[in-house]
Amino acid sequence: MELVVAKKILKANDQIAEGNRSKFDDAGVFVVNILGSPGSGKTALLEALFPLYRGRLNMAVIEGDLASTHDAERIEKAGVAAVQINTDGGCHLDANMIAAAAGSFDLRALDVLFIENVGNLVCTAGFDLGERLRVVVLSVPEGDDKVIKYPPIFQGAGAVVISKSDLLEHSDFDTARLRANLLRLNPSARVFELSAKKGAGVEAFADWLIEQRKISRRVAA
Amino acid sequence: MELVVAKKILKANDQIAEGNRSKFDDAGVFVVNILGSPGSGKTALLEALFPLYRGRLNMAVIEGDLASTHDAERIEKAGVAAVQINTDGGCHLDANMIAAAAGSFDLRALDVLFIENVGNLVCTAGFDLGERLRVVVLSVPEGDDKVIKYPPIFQGAGAVVISKSDLLEHSDFDTARLRANLLRLNPSARVFELSAKKGAGVEAFADWLIEQRKISRRVAA
Repeated sequence: MELVVAKKILKANDQIAEGNRSKFDDAGVFVVNILGSPGSGKTALLEALFPLYRGRLNMAVIEGDLASTHDAERIEKAGVAAVQINTDGGCHLDANMIAAAAGSFDLRALDVLFIENVGNLVCTAGFDLGERLRVVVLSVPEGDDKVIKYPPIFQGAGAVVISKSDLLEHSDFDTARLRANLLRLNPSARVFELSAKKGAGVEAFADWLIEQRKISRRVAA
Repeated sequence: MELVVAKKILKANDQIAEGNRSKFDDAGVFVVNILGSPGSGKTALLEALFPLYRGRLNMAVIEGDLASTHDAERIEKAGVAAVQINTDGGCHLDANMIAAAAGSFDLRALDVLFIENVGNLVCTAGFDLGERLRVVVLSVPEGDDKVIKYPPIFQGAGAVVISKSDLLEHSDFDTARLRANLLRLNPSARVFELSAKKGAGVEAFADWLIEQRKISRRVAA
């Protein structure tokens, strides 16, 4: 019984997500869904990207959390407009929440809309939000076995960002092993290694993201 | 509609969990549900505890993961019997899974049964498994804001283990801030700070756990 209901909800979500995507494409805004465990460094990644894009791209952020406005405050402190969604205990954002939150922005004035999902390596994977790109942030302290243990989220990723690379020297994280496991699961996913704290590797990811935006606009046109 | 169904499932789960708890109490086995984000160090904590308990307590572990037998293999390599539950994409263990897995052990021969839940700071919080104690493992690299951002799981914790304390010097994690936030949410939760890698702080937690087992046995008797 609950399986049937779940399927119906998912179908409804997919329809709303498609509507979101059309609206985003029409407005010319590139939407990136950022996923990862709690504390993997999703907000820190955004904070590191902003200075590189400032003056070149108009950005906004939708923040998803169970409770608090903590992350939206961090984003606004960095000078970027943010809307906070509180899921009231829910473990992921859905397309309906995004449709509502996107109404807070003048989409035509935006180049990139980042969605920072609830910190979760499981539930977030199943919900299309209407994005054009999914980025999974996996921090070095989480360990390189996460691709094997949480396959669905890595299967749907356009890119995997290995964050907190400054901690590699204090860890037995094996990037080659992660790449090999990811290759079997999702050969088209790009892998970036960066430290938002130290700045290393952020520019390469930022440039690739801009490239993806250009490709996406050509596809949408 | 789906809310009604969800409630029914939860109610069924609670009934099965109560059955599990009675069975565990009757057999004199202390059951600990270990929760935390992916990569927070739940398995490493168990690996660090085993040598301290060896020869004093008979232990076993139930491992929960979306896929793979990776963690159960680690546990067995450490010389402790383990059963791996694969949730096939599910973001938490439930009481039914535990009832089935517990059948693999001679419960009367055990003193402690550890359940390592799926790495998830959200979904796992809502499912009683029949345990006597919940321990939330939060690693230093995840950041001290997690109590504010993921309140339900911390609300139900008997103890919070701040893991990977060897990384404190590379982090702005503020233990005092975490303790203050936790105190508002769950004043009875004990906080431990430890490094499974370096061994620091593990003994204090191990001793407390044994104390909790004694208290629990008196309550159950």
